[in-house]
Amino acid sequence: MSLPGDNDAVRRAGAVLTVDLGAIAANWRGLRDAGRAAGRPVDCAAVLKADAYGTGATLVGPRLAAEGCRHFFVAHIDEAIALRAVLPELPIYVLNGLLPGTEGDFVEHRLVPVLNHLGQLNAWRGAAQRYSRPLDAVIHVDTGLNRLGFNPDEAQVLVNERGRLRGLRLALIISHLIASEEQNNPVNGEQLSRFRTFVKAMPGAPASLANSSGVFLGPDYHFDLLRPGAALYGINPLPDQSNPMLPVVTLNARILQVRKIDAFQTVGYGGAWRAARPGRVATIALGYADGYFRTLINRTHVQLAGHRVPVIGRISMDLTTIDVTDVPEAQCQPGDGVEVLGAHMTPDDLAEHARTNAYEVMTSLGRRYARVYVDRPELQPEPEPAEQPA
Amino acid sequence: MSLPGDNDAVRRAGAVLTVDLGAIAANWRGLRDAGRAAGRPVDCAAVLKADAYGTGATLVGPRLAAEGCRHFFVAHIDEAIALRAVLPELPIYVLNGLLPGTEGDFVEHRLVPVLNHLGQLNAWRGAAQRYSRPLDAVIHVDTGLNRLGFNPDEAQVLVNERGRLRGLRLALIISHLIASEEQNNPVNGEQLSRFRTFVKAMPGAPASLANSSGVFLGPDYHFDLLRPGAALYGINPLPDQSNPMLPVVTLNARILQVRKIDAFQTVGYGGAWRAARPGRVATIALGYADGYFRTLINRTHVQLAGHRVPVIGRISMDLTTIDVTDVPEAQCQPGDGVEVLGAHMTPDDLAEHARTNAYEVMTSLGRRYARVYVDRPELQPEPEPAEQPA
Repeated sequence: MSLPGDNDAVRRAGAVLTVDLGAIAANWRGLRDAGRAAGRPVDCAAVLKADAYGTGATLVGPRLAAEGCRHFFVAHIDEAIALRAVLPELPIYVLNGLLPGTEGDFVEHRLVPVLNHLGQLNAWRGAAQRYSRPLDAVIHVDTGLNRLGFNPDEAQVLVNERGRLRGLRLALIISHLIASEEQNNPVNGEQLSRFRTFVKAMPGAPASLANSSGVFLGPDYHFDLLRPGAALYGINPLPDQSNPMLPVVTLNARILQVRKIDAFQTVGYGGAWRAARPGRVATIALGYADGYFRTLINRTHVQLAGHRVPVIGRISMDLTTIDVTDVPEAQCQPGDGVEVLGAHMTPDDLAEHARTNAYEVMTSLGRRYARVYVDRPELQPEPEPAEQPA
Repeated sequence: MSLPGDNDAVRRAGAVLTVDLGAIAANWRGLRDAGRAAGRPVDCAAVLKADAYGTGATLVGPRLAAEGCRHFFVAHIDEAIALRAVLPELPIYVLNGLLPGTEGDFVEHRLVPVLNHLGQLNAWRGAAQRYSRPLDAVIHVDTGLNRLGFNPDEAQVLVNERGRLRGLRLALIISHLIASEEQNNPVNGEQLSRFRTFVKAMPGAPASLANSSGVFLGPDYHFDLLRPGAALYGINPLPDQSNPMLPVVTLNARILQVRKIDAFQTVGYGGAWRAARPGRVATIALGYADGYFRTLINRTHVQLAGHRVPVIGRISMDLTTIDVTDVPEAQCQPGDGVEVLGAHMTPDDLAEHARTNAYEVMTSLGRRYARVYVDRPELQPEPEPAEQPA
């Protein structure tokens, strides 16, 4: 099997990450439509932090904007500035909020800070005064995560003293769910109730509560704006059910060498794997420096020519060894590609083998992969029906 | 505590990684001197793969070249091409070897492939013929790792048929140790013996066996060229002894918010940490998307104003929560920095908490950190003694 793509970067690469932009767009449409299903005008944002979960924010952002997405969330100011370069007009919200001394950066790049406490609110109001213009703001109210956001006392101050927002335009009120992937966890309802109370006390501002899994908690959780991240990139928002999202990433790594080994020989550092029979071992060009975690030692497999091929021995920094004894030699030659992530192994599957979650798999995707972006015609939106000639 | 550095990137950053180039250079000198201690002319290379273990290869390379380093190793072709731009003359060796169809890239950028099997050797000889010039080559002979390198049969072919190298200049013979950090593991001696046999059978070519820990196995392992990676970056090459290397990286993350919590409240996703007493929680701006592994949940600490501050609850993608109950409020304000890696917590320490090794900690260092490079005068090499005027 050869590797996808045919440019210089692919030719020189140890591994190739293919990102299906059309699948991301289709996932976004699916979530947006879930929001509209109850007949209310719910909009759908996109969370592009951590380089769009490793898939490439500056390519994913414009693709989703072309699809109709109008609201983008990132974590850091610099992520927002990079996105602003390719999304010149649409609102970009910075979840980590206003760092001391960064008001000018937000104003210069027309970014909207998510204000997480009164200190950030006061600083942003000060900026509105200094720049003599109304500035957009998001208020993040904490409903139990105890991580970022106005705590109950501070939220009450806002409710009682609306003048504290003078000079600002309240673009959105948000909160984060603690355990939205557990549909029967009563904490979801508790958070919903707290959020509703706050939103009702701050009339006039749109509100957003639902992350990817939150969309599937039902219309009560949808408010005005859905805010999915993970599900856009194919991560299953419903861990105990089959994944309703389209897969987005495929990762193929190249075989560098194939060797015969005898029974009882060990493979890799520390001799952590020992052959039970004579066989063949292939070495592929990715390792833990590429986000192929060391925890995968002797615990996962790749796909080669229709065969499920076990990963054996310690993962090295740049290399991984696989047992290809059962793959015909002709299908297993230096230069051939093996599928590391794809139809046979989703990020959710690999995460289970690595004892983490698919989010960490995605955000750890390596910097050294050649990247190929595809956008299949069948995943483009339906064209608007042409008007009949008069 | 404020964060180091004062440029725009630092002002906007959630966390700042400081890399001490002088410490890397001093570590290199120390290893080189260890090689020279036995009175033989042993040279010392530098392994810069995986972006110099996360520290920045294009800055580390020239700094070590200025120090006298004359040999550089990377894993991938593209790493070598990036390094070539800042190291126009010195040899750069590509450990993953010659991929099919990349001979022209190696020739164009004057890179030296590490040849791992006869197929790569034949392809490189073909290139020498096509380009009508002698090409440098490294032969990697496997001595038991069973990962990359000529296996015993293929190595014997080379020994018997030296004509197979015609058209190539054998720049170096290398092998990799399996368990060099275990000084009493008999496999070290077995590999040494196999390597010696091969080197003796291929007279005239310089040889290199010792990685960082291998340097400390003694002069028998040194041959002509030491090949340290990890130890240059401060990773302990002697796991059971105190670390002889200077620390290289410091990581400071910014506090975004501090909140009071009541006893029995939970913090973070899944409510994975519950307060035993009323206290205060700070949220800092780094998470697992920055290489702060999810395995660190409730298992490590950071340093703030001289206090050891526990990390609590699940690590989020962009955020981590810490228990600052015992830190005076004045020393724990939004914008302040906490030390994540540094004197109180080396990469080796953090690796132990994350149940991995310091190599994975280093190569996972985040892309979103602002980076500050320092090079302290006291770590510069001694100037050559001035000649006395006649």
